[in-house]
Amino acid sequence: MALPVSPLAVNLPELPPLAGVRLGAAAAGIRYKGRTDVVMAEFPAGTTVAGVFTRNKCPGAPVDWDRAALASGKARALVVNAGNANVFTGKAGADAARATAVAAAGLVGCPVKQVFLASTGVIGELLPHERLTAALPALHGTLSEASWEAAARGIMTTDTFPKASTRIASIGGAEVRITGIAKGSGMIAPDMATMLCFVFTDAKIPAPLLQAALGKGTESSFNCTTVDSDTSTSDTVLLFATGQARHPKVPAEGGAALLRDFRARLNEVLLDLALQVVRDGEGAQKLIRIDVSGAVSARSAKRVAMAIGNSPLVKTAIAGEDANWGRIVMAVGKAGEPADRDRLSVAVGGVWMARDGGVVPGYDEAPVVAHMKGREIGIAVDLGLGTGKATAWTCDLTHGYIDINGSYRS
Amino acid sequence: MALPVSPLAVNLPELPPLAGVRLGAAAAGIRYKGRTDVVMAEFPAGTTVAGVFTRNKCPGAPVDWDRAALASGKARALVVNAGNANVFTGKAGADAARATAVAAAGLVGCPVKQVFLASTGVIGELLPHERLTAALPALHGTLSEASWEAAARGIMTTDTFPKASTRIASIGGAEVRITGIAKGSGMIAPDMATMLCFVFTDAKIPAPLLQAALGKGTESSFNCTTVDSDTSTSDTVLLFATGQARHPKVPAEGGAALLRDFRARLNEVLLDLALQVVRDGEGAQKLIRIDVSGAVSARSAKRVAMAIGNSPLVKTAIAGEDANWGRIVMAVGKAGEPADRDRLSVAVGGVWMARDGGVVPGYDEAPVVAHMKGREIGIAVDLGLGTGKATAWTCDLTHGYIDINGSYRS
Repeated sequence: MALPVSPLAVNLPELPPLAGVRLGAAAAGIRYKGRTDVVMAEFPAGTTVAGVFTRNKCPGAPVDWDRAALASGKARALVVNAGNANVFTGKAGADAARATAVAAAGLVGCPVKQVFLASTGVIGELLPHERLTAALPALHGTLSEASWEAAARGIMTTDTFPKASTRIASIGGAEVRITGIAKGSGMIAPDMATMLCFVFTDAKIPAPLLQAALGKGTESSFNCTTVDSDTSTSDTVLLFATGQARHPKVPAEGGAALLRDFRARLNEVLLDLALQVVRDGEGAQKLIRIDVSGAVSARSAKRVAMAIGNSPLVKTAIAGEDANWGRIVMAVGKAGEPADRDRLSVAVGGVWMARDGGVVPGYDEAPVVAHMKGREIGIAVDLGLGTGKATAWTCDLTHGYIDINGSYRS
Repeated sequence: MALPVSPLAVNLPELPPLAGVRLGAAAAGIRYKGRTDVVMAEFPAGTTVAGVFTRNKCPGAPVDWDRAALASGKARALVVNAGNANVFTGKAGADAARATAVAAAGLVGCPVKQVFLASTGVIGELLPHERLTAALPALHGTLSEASWEAAARGIMTTDTFPKASTRIASIGGAEVRITGIAKGSGMIAPDMATMLCFVFTDAKIPAPLLQAALGKGTESSFNCTTVDSDTSTSDTVLLFATGQARHPKVPAEGGAALLRDFRARLNEVLLDLALQVVRDGEGAQKLIRIDVSGAVSARSAKRVAMAIGNSPLVKTAIAGEDANWGRIVMAVGKAGEPADRDRLSVAVGGVWMARDGGVVPGYDEAPVVAHMKGREIGIAVDLGLGTGKATAWTCDLTHGYIDINGSYRS
């Protein structure tokens, strides 16, 4: 795990306490040595919860557990371990998940179904849950409102920097806080949400409204990012609302209007965290933003943007600092969405290199060459067909990705 | 282009003359120095032709040309250039294609629409077709029945070895020959057929039957291979039948039964060529065969097999000689096809490592470790749902791929 920190890393923001969330990290020695690998958070009674999970057909046992637990919309605790994903572990995996929830519920004094779980790491190895449950009592004794950084670090696997984001939102004129932490670096092609992300707020929001806000927010954040087109079996985003803030009541029926600012700030947190995951994409040297316009629909634009973002040839060209728009054209064409070669325009770094199906005569390559040497690369594609638009984010494909994933059982 | 020859390369087979095909190669200096880059073939009157092309929505001008020319089912000449794909070149590209066809038709003495074209190389640069047409008269004077190797070499781009395959088939007891050449190494995720492939036979077969045989053959050969999931804008497979062999007449109506052996041998040639392309996959060190069984349908099995073959995490694991079946499970799950985690079984090198959703207790890793060190890797997945099965082929993802595609405008 001695990977160099991504050159695209951002600093951890200051993370003030959030009323109702006490958390901490400990070393359970599940796979890693000399680092924390289990994180716990405890919430007060009345906390509501929303979740979005992987659409991978082979989900891990913790995903199964959370999907079932989400039915009540109530949460009292979260337990996360890094190093072992508890995926493809059959009945033993389900038993390990239950044992973990039972142990945490005993410490917190709540129903087991109000404990949420997440595991990340190697697939197909049995989770030594007795090490995990053995570490929980001491960890529970250390939970505090100040341990955000410890929690952000405790869930890392191949991540090279901890990821967090925080915003203040207004509900009916009263301030609430939204803070999230995330991990993720490879196996990133969220079919809902990338790897693990936990967002917390002190707002008091009925679970169905919370779920609607989270579902919408992940669509335009995590679901618009890709590192390597591979969809994890453990992708989980959970949003906990402790209800400790004082603000006008948000009714389950008709409360959505009150949440306009909350949703906007939540979306900012989600996008910030999603981009931090891309910035820590395995081997990433450049962050790539892809804006597609002129598509027949927003859905079509998103598919085209993701086809560009998933193209190994586009990503290796950018790694080589080559504004190879021919490969961008190829990726547009393979997306399977409506496209007319002779209306297609492509820009890199804000300079239109190709318009209406051909090279822009005598375009000045100098600013594009300079742009390609930077850390943040912008690609724009206009399909010239309609008004649909979308944005996607990815990173370049470098030797670092091969190094990280070609080593034995990384 | 000084790439080392792929360790998976196969030797060029002996390629005897094929009645009715005269061919040759010349250096037109379009992009490369000191090598041939234009190939021409001439056929006798009565030659029929079938073609299958890229489904990329941004096809090259030669693909447009061939699609139109295919309407008559007749061919007299083929002109191929390497180094410039004549893709995304607007009206100038269409003009370049026409000028090339006009020049070749003048030399052969045939309608321009009986000249077939293919171009491969960089996308988005204007094809200097005057260099190409200037080289054609001398080239035409050198065409011979013996120049198969020259033709196979003249169409190479990032290929590290020339690719050809030949078989003898029987039609109604009479022997006919089928010989094909192909090129391809990167941008290989055929949505019909990979890059360029030209197959020739001296059989006399009506164009509709020829087209049916080719369409079916590419589905289970080129369309079951992937190097990097990127679908070329130039993919072209053309099959020319010169009609010079003596065999019982194949009627347009009801002639399919006579072609049973011909189709079987044609499929062998297509699969042989498709696998040679995968063996020359950019940076490839290992050839990977993926057998999926127990799917709800053959179509579903193929999608699962291709999802495994397109997974960067599976491919980098194999490059690292890691039988990481957790990543295979992930790829099965992300395919979007029906799959039940708890019925899933995975084998590598013929050894079942996971059965019915969990690790096989105490399985012997030694033979798997030995298998992973070899050049040819076998993955088998049984979904346990139905009788659908399919096979796909790919190669590993190595530093070589990044080297080749990250260098400026490769």
